Amino acid sequence: MKLLEDRIRRDGTIKAGNVLKVDSFLNHQLDIVLYNEMGKEFRRLFPDGRITKILTIEASGIGIACIAAQYFGVPVVFAKKTQSLNLDGDVYTARVESFTHKKVYDIMVSARYLTPDDHILIIDDFLANGCAVTGLIELVQRAGAGLEGVGIAIEKGFQDGGRLLRSSGIRVESLAVIEKMDAETGVITFRS
Amino acid sequence: MKLLEDRIRRDGTIKAGNVLKVDSFLNHQLDIVLYNEMGKEFRRLFPDGRITKILTIEASGIGIACIAAQYFGVPVVFAKKTQSLNLDGDVYTARVESFTHKKVYDIMVSARYLTPDDHILIIDDFLANGCAVTGLIELVQRAGAGLEGVGIAIEKGFQDGGRLLRSSGIRVESLAVIEKMDAETGVITFRS
Repeated sequence: MKLLEDRIRRDGTIKAGNVLKVDSFLNHQLDIVLYNEMGKEFRRLFPDGRITKILTIEASGIGIACIAAQYFGVPVVFAKKTQSLNLDGDVYTARVESFTHKKVYDIMVSARYLTPDDHILIIDDFLANGCAVTGLIELVQRAGAGLEGVGIAIEKGFQDGGRLLRSSGIRVESLAVIEKMDAETGVITFRS
Repeated sequence: MKLLEDRIRRDGTIKAGNVLKVDSFLNHQLDIVLYNEMGKEFRRLFPDGRITKILTIEASGIGIACIAAQYFGVPVVFAKKTQSLNLDGDVYTARVESFTHKKVYDIMVSARYLTPDDHILIIDDFLANGCAVTGLIELVQRAGAGLEGVGIAIEKGFQDGGRLLRSSGIRVESLAVIEKMDAETGVITFRS
């Protein structure tokens, strides 16, 4: 998605350790006009009318998921991150290992909001090693729901998450896939 | 806002300790159609064209703020909750004491996204003791930005937050104000 790629080139900052900071428009300050264009693009990429819910994870996936949900006409459910599980009724949980933050945490979703009748589109802001998305897929599987696909704003194509998910047969659509980025020169190369 | 009050009556659950569970439509599973009506109502209540940004706090404020922002034509900034501050550049911080979760945490926002030129509308899902909103107001004040008001989905009118904020001259608009609620009978009385 050219609009997003241009924005990443203009306002993204590359930090040491393959960190891409996009907090001026994507995950701290949120450009809602851009979010709307991203939402429309997700809809174009997933035109299937069967999707019943969008599943995301707190915190930075929520805004993108909510704006996108308008184009699908479905509710959003967000998984909660928790280090001490608050077991209020039936929940599905999965363990997520974050390479970025070097910690392990649990994610949970109430069993009331993921059911065998659901057809789920997962949406998140970033895909790198794929740990968060893999955790969300586990929640979908535990619920016996159908997984329609995964929509990502920015995929770090030089990390393994996207390749692993796609090779297991999951449809992953990323609006911008970074092939490589160079903290020294600031040059970002996108997959075409 | 009758639509929200009706929804709370229909789908809200009162738990012991004055806890109102609205996670089927407001803060775990998110009804985006309802969110849009709430966003329009916030715009009607705050018609001032000076608002430059909506400030909220992760996680459950983000979706409401993003949908509402479409009616204001402004970006959203969300404050991050953190127990160990990640001081990446200049940030404004405030300390928040949560009565619900019985813990103290810090909230932070990058100084790049709150400036003296900003006119801020704060939006959040709940107002009870007002601790989170007071923390957000502190961030606005530290930045030297203007505070245009506070928009809340559900205010617990029997707790002190709303009264304290309004008595200090802050414009607080809550879409539904609960006067009292009874866990035994399930009866919820709204302020008219």
